[in-house]
Amino acid sequence: MKQNIGIGAPKKIKFNQELQLKKGVALPEFELMIETYGTLNQAHSNAILICHALSGNHHVAGRYTEQDKYPGWWDTMVGPGKPIDTNHFFVVGLNNLGGCYGSTGPGSINPKTGKLYGSDFPVVTVEDWVQSQALLADYLEIPQWAAVAGGSLGGMQALQWAIDFPERLKHAVIIASAPQLSAQNIAFNDVARQAILSDPDFDQGFYQEHNKKPRNGLKIARMMGHITYLAEQGLGMKFGRELKHGGLQYNYDTDFEVESYLRYQGDKFSDSFDGNSYLLMTKALDYFDPAQAYGGELSEAVKRIQAKTFLVSFSSDWRFAPKRSKEILQALIHAEKAVQYLEVESIYGHDAFLLDDPAYIQGMQIYFERINQEVNHVAG
Amino acid sequence: MKQNIGIGAPKKIKFNQELQLKKGVALPEFELMIETYGTLNQAHSNAILICHALSGNHHVAGRYTEQDKYPGWWDTMVGPGKPIDTNHFFVVGLNNLGGCYGSTGPGSINPKTGKLYGSDFPVVTVEDWVQSQALLADYLEIPQWAAVAGGSLGGMQALQWAIDFPERLKHAVIIASAPQLSAQNIAFNDVARQAILSDPDFDQGFYQEHNKKPRNGLKIARMMGHITYLAEQGLGMKFGRELKHGGLQYNYDTDFEVESYLRYQGDKFSDSFDGNSYLLMTKALDYFDPAQAYGGELSEAVKRIQAKTFLVSFSSDWRFAPKRSKEILQALIHAEKAVQYLEVESIYGHDAFLLDDPAYIQGMQIYFERINQEVNHVAG
Repeated sequence: MKQNIGIGAPKKIKFNQELQLKKGVALPEFELMIETYGTLNQAHSNAILICHALSGNHHVAGRYTEQDKYPGWWDTMVGPGKPIDTNHFFVVGLNNLGGCYGSTGPGSINPKTGKLYGSDFPVVTVEDWVQSQALLADYLEIPQWAAVAGGSLGGMQALQWAIDFPERLKHAVIIASAPQLSAQNIAFNDVARQAILSDPDFDQGFYQEHNKKPRNGLKIARMMGHITYLAEQGLGMKFGRELKHGGLQYNYDTDFEVESYLRYQGDKFSDSFDGNSYLLMTKALDYFDPAQAYGGELSEAVKRIQAKTFLVSFSSDWRFAPKRSKEILQALIHAEKAVQYLEVESIYGHDAFLLDDPAYIQGMQIYFERINQEVNHVAG
Repeated sequence: MKQNIGIGAPKKIKFNQELQLKKGVALPEFELMIETYGTLNQAHSNAILICHALSGNHHVAGRYTEQDKYPGWWDTMVGPGKPIDTNHFFVVGLNNLGGCYGSTGPGSINPKTGKLYGSDFPVVTVEDWVQSQALLADYLEIPQWAAVAGGSLGGMQALQWAIDFPERLKHAVIIASAPQLSAQNIAFNDVARQAILSDPDFDQGFYQEHNKKPRNGLKIARMMGHITYLAEQGLGMKFGRELKHGGLQYNYDTDFEVESYLRYQGDKFSDSFDGNSYLLMTKALDYFDPAQAYGGELSEAVKRIQAKTFLVSFSSDWRFAPKRSKEILQALIHAEKAVQYLEVESIYGHDAFLLDDPAYIQGMQIYFERINQEVNHVAG
């Protein structure tokens, strides 16, 4: 029976060691905020790492208090009786380095100066995140993940894991992702960054010191991003040309429901998210390109992979379209790797990977049940 | 032989009469900036009105000086030997009311106050524009246009003309357009507006009085708009993941060529365009919905049309996709109207309507040659 996970609590883990970054600099020490669900089995073989997308965090499932309005961002997928079944798996969510939910990032104290990092926090990459997550696996005494899974930017981390640490995961679950961003993806990200960077309250990235926030920039960035995560059809069905006040207003307040909805989403996001973290996350997206180190050949890059791979895409996702998942599929087939691919019919665009779609949930359920058989029932 | 039109000159026409607007207010008087090419024939039957899109104006073709870097915005289409052949047609371009290229708009003096209109300039609609253009036709002594033609928002004006003044045009040429905006279209427009409205230099729309300009807001709006006018494929072929400086910079300056290009386009646009006009033009787009006055039935709205209609769409245009042109096509067929439809294969998205695509140019050439036969060779 499908159940919700109940009340959970995050915890912060301190790593008293240097982390060398792709940029060529090192973090002298760092902390990762994590949240876990379920129980690690005796063989330490049933652990699943959940990697988050642009605005996600360690709070994957459940609630902190009974009063919480919303559960964690992947509560549809993670819990007792759900596809990533916490009766069988030990599930680990984390906030990535550079984030704004408790892990070391622009809002942390720079130990070298005793002041907030602000925009002195270095640009980090998907490879850097995977390195930090490997140190987390060491800390948790997990020699090999049963699976590393994520959607969008989270899927990129799962792919990078499979390439960089072939022996440390049995499965890579890569959902609504891409082997690299397109020019159009990069272009949208840069508009978002320009909106934040040009906000007068950005203060060259040291706004927190001055108790300010690039709120307008974040709002514009999120409004635009939000449109691109949704499909035209889904947006049309939800809002159409529905008016907010019956008639046209002939001014620049609110005419259409879709405007009201997007502005609300933008405001909400600018309350909860951090400008510097948004800049960092979009750069990590832009820079991701695992084929690059292998002469631009993705099929070369994936040759190292030992994990089995499960790819999922959504028909109406135009930010990370099915054709992008198929590029990963083709590279894996070319390299003669074990791979399965599921394309889900959906009108909800990129956001579909967060939603409760029956075909998607069932596909994940079947795949993770197989993983459960592999890791928990080896002898039987 | 195809030739360029040579050196032209705009001219301003003053209308000393009230123009009642859909908003419920009136402009006490107004001016329209126009530019004409070719010669009006004796029967006054060879005139073609060119309606502009969001950022266009009256300068449709040719150059003002030999030194001008670029000709008018539809120079590919208008000129001697070109599809809209100025050897045969008298072509009229204008800047719409509310624009920033010489026609009465937010940058004009409000005769009631003696000060600049700024954001006191009323929100105008496609219907209002068509009314003002009908007064322009009266002034030019053109009882009936041989054709009203335009792309995007310009196509919307051509459709509105055919509905509102059925006897005053022989042909409506509606290119890369739509019978109304989708929720996604409106959403993108609202992000653009929010970027301008939240720019601290916007000053509630009275920035010109204070010698300011919402430059950042305009830049963000244009960068985002520009992405949506291009197709993913065209953008990918032009820029891909090409780097500006060889390696990654690990900062927020410029990594990718596409960023550099977009920011340049954004800066150029914020130099030449006006914030209040941008707000107005996007509202005119959002409000356009000719079916609305006919119970939401487009096939009812088009029943009044007497003009023959030529519809053109471009395969990769996702802002005004072929399916939107086909909605107009279906409504016209349903109402048993004369209509032709051309869908051009293109990788250049919405912008294709401004480009020199052979199939598009040829389609237009054939159509306008027929119009030429109709209006210039009636007896022969």
